[in-house]
Amino acid sequence: METNPLFETLNPPQRMLMGPGPINAYPRVHQAISSALIGQYDPVMTGYMNQVQALYRNVFETQNPQTFLVDGTARAGIEAVLVSVLQPGDKVLIPVIGRFGHLLCEIAHRVGATVQTIDIEWGEVCPPEKVEAAIREFQPKMLATVQGDTSTTMNQPLAEIGEICQRHGVLFYCDATASIAGNTLNVDEWHLDAVSAGLQKCLGGPSGSAPVTLSERCVAVINRRKRVEAGIRTEAHQDGEDTPILSNYFDLAMVMDYWGPERLNHHTEATSMLYAARECARLYLEEGAAQVIARHQQAGRAMAVGLEAMGLTLFGNQQYKMNNVVGVYIPEQINGEQARQELLHRFGIEIGTSFGPLHGKIWRIGTMGYNARQECVLMTLAALESVLLKAKVPVAAGQTVAAAMDVFGA
Amino acid sequence: METNPLFETLNPPQRMLMGPGPINAYPRVHQAISSALIGQYDPVMTGYMNQVQALYRNVFETQNPQTFLVDGTARAGIEAVLVSVLQPGDKVLIPVIGRFGHLLCEIAHRVGATVQTIDIEWGEVCPPEKVEAAIREFQPKMLATVQGDTSTTMNQPLAEIGEICQRHGVLFYCDATASIAGNTLNVDEWHLDAVSAGLQKCLGGPSGSAPVTLSERCVAVINRRKRVEAGIRTEAHQDGEDTPILSNYFDLAMVMDYWGPERLNHHTEATSMLYAARECARLYLEEGAAQVIARHQQAGRAMAVGLEAMGLTLFGNQQYKMNNVVGVYIPEQINGEQARQELLHRFGIEIGTSFGPLHGKIWRIGTMGYNARQECVLMTLAALESVLLKAKVPVAAGQTVAAAMDVFGA
Repeated sequence: METNPLFETLNPPQRMLMGPGPINAYPRVHQAISSALIGQYDPVMTGYMNQVQALYRNVFETQNPQTFLVDGTARAGIEAVLVSVLQPGDKVLIPVIGRFGHLLCEIAHRVGATVQTIDIEWGEVCPPEKVEAAIREFQPKMLATVQGDTSTTMNQPLAEIGEICQRHGVLFYCDATASIAGNTLNVDEWHLDAVSAGLQKCLGGPSGSAPVTLSERCVAVINRRKRVEAGIRTEAHQDGEDTPILSNYFDLAMVMDYWGPERLNHHTEATSMLYAARECARLYLEEGAAQVIARHQQAGRAMAVGLEAMGLTLFGNQQYKMNNVVGVYIPEQINGEQARQELLHRFGIEIGTSFGPLHGKIWRIGTMGYNARQECVLMTLAALESVLLKAKVPVAAGQTVAAAMDVFGA
Repeated sequence: METNPLFETLNPPQRMLMGPGPINAYPRVHQAISSALIGQYDPVMTGYMNQVQALYRNVFETQNPQTFLVDGTARAGIEAVLVSVLQPGDKVLIPVIGRFGHLLCEIAHRVGATVQTIDIEWGEVCPPEKVEAAIREFQPKMLATVQGDTSTTMNQPLAEIGEICQRHGVLFYCDATASIAGNTLNVDEWHLDAVSAGLQKCLGGPSGSAPVTLSERCVAVINRRKRVEAGIRTEAHQDGEDTPILSNYFDLAMVMDYWGPERLNHHTEATSMLYAARECARLYLEEGAAQVIARHQQAGRAMAVGLEAMGLTLFGNQQYKMNNVVGVYIPEQINGEQARQELLHRFGIEIGTSFGPLHGKIWRIGTMGYNARQECVLMTLAALESVLLKAKVPVAAGQTVAAAMDVFGA
C-alpha cells in the first residue's frame, strides 16, 4: 500500500477557458449541479427526466419523442447512436473534414460497420454534390457527420445533405457536440435522424452528459434490435428481429425504456449531471436560441477581427467557420506552446493547441457559452497581444482590442 | 415545435435515501462538484487526475498503477472491463447470486464471450468449492462476480475465490459498486485482477463516475488488444497482436493512455464528476477505511435488529448480509408499494422495492455512506413502525427504536 495522502481541499484556479472546449460553465449550472440528490424512481426525479426531454426537444428544434441523455461524455453519445443503429456489415458513409470525422470512422469500424469516407482537405467542408455521388455509388444505410469539427473550426452545412439523405432513404446522423447552441441546428427541418451532443461547449456545462435525439424512423431501426436484458426481462418482452445491439450500456432501445413510461431499470441516472444538463437547456431557452446564437456569432466575429487586426492570419475557409471557435496561424517568431503557457500562467487564460496535420501550426481560440461575451474576447486579445509583443513578434500594437470593440458596437 | 416551457428553478425535495442506492451525498461532495471548471490538459487538472489515481489505489487497497475513473455510471465500469478483457469466444465463468450477476452475464454475452454461470439461490452466496469445480471443468479465461448484490443484499466472500483463480491462472473480476466502502475489499490481498465500482452507494457521491482498478496481468491482456484510434494515431503507435476492442469509449487501453503520461486524447474528462469522485475518496480515507466500514456495520446491524424487534422477518442468509443493506419481508397485511409511498410522502424517507423473484415480497433498506448513521436508522425505523401501525399490521409497538439504540450504545 502506498502512503495515504489526502491532498488539499479542492480549489481549482479561476481560469478563463478560451480554447475549443471544455469552457467555463454558467454560474447557474454550478448551482444546479450541487443540488440535493433524490432517488432514481422518485416522482420528482422522473418528473425532472421528463422535463429534460421536453427542454432538449426545444434545444434540438425537434418534435422527436425520443430525446434524452446518455450518461457519459459526448463521445458516449456518438458510440451509443452508432452501436445501436449499425449492425455488423451495415454500410455507413462518413465525410471527414477533421479529427472528429476520423473518430466517427473509428467508432463505426469498431461496431463492425463497413465504412466509406469522403476525405476533405482540413479547413474546408464537404460539398453536397460529393455526398450525393457517394450515396448513389455506395448505397449506405447511414450518413454520419460532424457538424462543427473543432479540429479545423469548420461548420459543415447540413440542410442540403439532409435533403439528399431523405431523398435516398439514408439515415442521417450528426455529432453536434461542438456546434450546438452556438450555431443553427434545426433537427427536424434538416431531416436529421439522430443527433448527439455534449454540454461542455456552447451549452455552458461540464463534460459528462450527452443529449441525444432520434427520429421515429431511427427509433424503429433501433427497436428492431431490441433484447431486454436478463434479470429484468419478463414474458411480456419480445425480441426484435434484427441482430442484438453489441453493447448493454449503449443499448438505446433499453435506454429509451428507462426514460419512457415503462421506466425499465437500466443504469442509475447520473442525477447531478442531469441537473446540470437541465440548467444548460433552461439557460439557452430562456435567453432564446436566436439570441444565444447571435451572441456567439458576434463574439466569434470580434475575436476573428481582433486577431486579423493584430496582423495574424486565420486558418480555413472563413465562409464556413464555426461561430464559436477560430483557428489562427502561430507566428513563426514564437513557439506556440510557450505562448500558451504564458497566457495560462500570467493571465489565467487558456487557448487551444491543435491535432494531426495542424499540430504546432495553429492555435484554436473559442468563444463559447458563458464566455461568448465581450469581456472575454477583449481580455483574450489584449493578453495575446502582450505575449506576442513580449516575444518580439511584429504585431500591429494597439489595434486588436479596438477592432474587436467595434464589432460589439459603441 | 412544442411550446417552450422553462420549468421551475431546480429545487429537489430533501429526501432521506434509505434504499439500496443511490443515496444522499456527503455535504462536502456537493461543495466539490460545484467547483470551477478548468481545462482538460491544464496542469492543475492533470494533477487532480493523478491525485484521483492515488486516492483510489488506497480506497481499493491496491498498488495497481492502473487505477482511474471511467466516465459513466457503475454499469459503464462493468462494460469497460468486460469488453476490454474478453475477446469474442473467450470463456467467462459467472456465479449468479442475484440480479446483478445476470447483468454481468448479459454484458459478457453482448461482447461475444462464452458464458457459463453457477446459479445460486437468491439469498445465498456461492461456495468456493463450486467455483473450483466449475473452473476445472470449464477452464475460463476470467471469473466475473458481483461482491455485494443489492438485489438480494448478499455479500459474496471473495478471498478464497481469489486464491482459487490465482492457482488456476484465471483472471478475477469483481463489480464492487454496491459493496465498496461499506464492506471490506482488499484488491491485492484477494488477488483481484479487475474491480469496478460507482460512487452512489457507500462512497456517498452521485451516480455517474466508475472507479476501476486493473492488475498488471490484466493490463497486459488489455494492451495486447490495443489500437490507437484514427485521427491521433502516429507511427510510434504499434498494434497489439490480439483482436481489437469492440468499443472506443470503453477501450481501456486508450483510456489508460489518457490517464497516463502520454495523455493521449480520448474523451474529455467529466471534470465535475471527477471532483465528486476525488472528494468521496478523501472523505473515506480521512475518516479511515476501517472506521467507515465499522460505521456501516453498526448502522446495518442496528437497522436489522430494529426490524426484527418490530416482529418483521429478514430475508436471506444473515451470515452473508452486506453491511449496508438489509432485505425484509413485507408483512402480508400491507401493500408494499403503498407503504413505500407513505414513507416517501409523509416522512420524506425512501426505502427500496425489489426485482425479479423478490418483487413485491421484500423491501430493501440501506444504510450507506452519509446515511450510515444513528439518526437515519432511528428515524427510518420510527417512520416505518408508524406506517405499519397505521395500516394495522400487528407489530410490537415501541420496540424497534429502543432495540436499534442499544446497538449504538448508551
